[in-house]
Amino acid sequence: MHISILTFDGFNELDSLIALGILNRIKQPDWRVTLASPTAEVTSMNGVTLQRHISLSEACQADAVLIGSGIKTREIVADHRIIEQLQLDPSRQLIGAQCSGSLILEKLGLLQNIPACTDLTTTPWLQDSGIEVLNQAFFAKDNVASSGGCLASSYLAAWVIARLVSIEAAQEAIHYVAPVGEKERYVQQTLKNILPFLSNANQYGSVRQNPVQGT
Amino acid sequence: MHISILTFDGFNELDSLIALGILNRIKQPDWRVTLASPTAEVTSMNGVTLQRHISLSEACQADAVLIGSGIKTREIVADHRIIEQLQLDPSRQLIGAQCSGSLILEKLGLLQNIPACTDLTTTPWLQDSGIEVLNQAFFAKDNVASSGGCLASSYLAAWVIARLVSIEAAQEAIHYVAPVGEKERYVQQTLKNILPFLSNANQYGSVRQNPVQGT
Repeated sequence: MHISILTFDGFNELDSLIALGILNRIKQPDWRVTLASPTAEVTSMNGVTLQRHISLSEACQADAVLIGSGIKTREIVADHRIIEQLQLDPSRQLIGAQCSGSLILEKLGLLQNIPACTDLTTTPWLQDSGIEVLNQAFFAKDNVASSGGCLASSYLAAWVIARLVSIEAAQEAIHYVAPVGEKERYVQQTLKNILPFLSNANQYGSVRQNPVQGT
Repeated sequence: MHISILTFDGFNELDSLIALGILNRIKQPDWRVTLASPTAEVTSMNGVTLQRHISLSEACQADAVLIGSGIKTREIVADHRIIEQLQLDPSRQLIGAQCSGSLILEKLGLLQNIPACTDLTTTPWLQDSGIEVLNQAFFAKDNVASSGGCLASSYLAAWVIARLVSIEAAQEAIHYVAPVGEKERYVQQTLKNILPFLSNANQYGSVRQNPVQGT
């Protein structure tokens, strides 16, 4: 399984890297988590420069694609050279967006007839496009998910793990990263957010199944 | 105010970058948050390569220094070339450690007669050095703090903001990054962790005061 996190110039460090850290808790030989960017290096909204692993076009081949957020997402949505590279397909991939990443979901036509979660700053912009924005941290329909508030990126990562591996694996990953003494509380809060969107997920999803998922 | 986050090869992305993102919520002209590393580039435990902002020796001049964690912290503790550069002084600086960063606190003699928080993997190693490890997410005594569990790095960042700016500023920063629909809960949980260690802090601390702190 390959999960790629789209990370653009001006990115929010929490939104791309919390998901990356949690997703890397899965230790399976075929499990790969990458950062994908339009350029070889990208600099965050707070001046952190990192190297991408793969290009955007390579990321489009991943089993799951998470769209990170940042302070330049509206510019990215308006940049047809970037948008044209994003050939995402929810019939074969899990697709999730964090905070302003939902603007890219909308631009790609992936929010038709479904509501979305996003951060408080992005909310009016998404509403201007006619999208219903929910006052909650996480929402998913079939293979498309969105989450709002930087730390909700842990829910997005947990949803990906639950869909591609198992709910138990998602619980273990969140347990590991949660604060000492608060681990059970974090696991329960995560399950509260993602479980409503996992029932019957398989009947919609056509993402390639990991053998573990059936357990 | 300059806050520097020590980030070594093999670093845990969550532990360095959640703190960096939250600390950067403070928008004051003299507020600066940097990543400090032994080399110009460092690569994380999950293969993310980023560029440092400053050297370790420059970081030692900061008003607050947070020590990130990673999978190579025991090697770093054994590397006298690195340890000798870490001239930290709790009489003039706030010093905090996340997870295995507590091993560096211990090596520098900063855990004498005080307990510490760390992650579950590091716990026995720290206990081997005679340090009492607490089953909680955050602990601080005077100007030295430690936290355990990746996501507890938000408590460490909130403590720094509360000490250098105000409790209200810490609340606002956590409110911003918390999941939508769960913001008040996150703020309260953060306060529960850090408030017990803030009362009378000023009577011990000699860190340079920001004018806002007195309010």
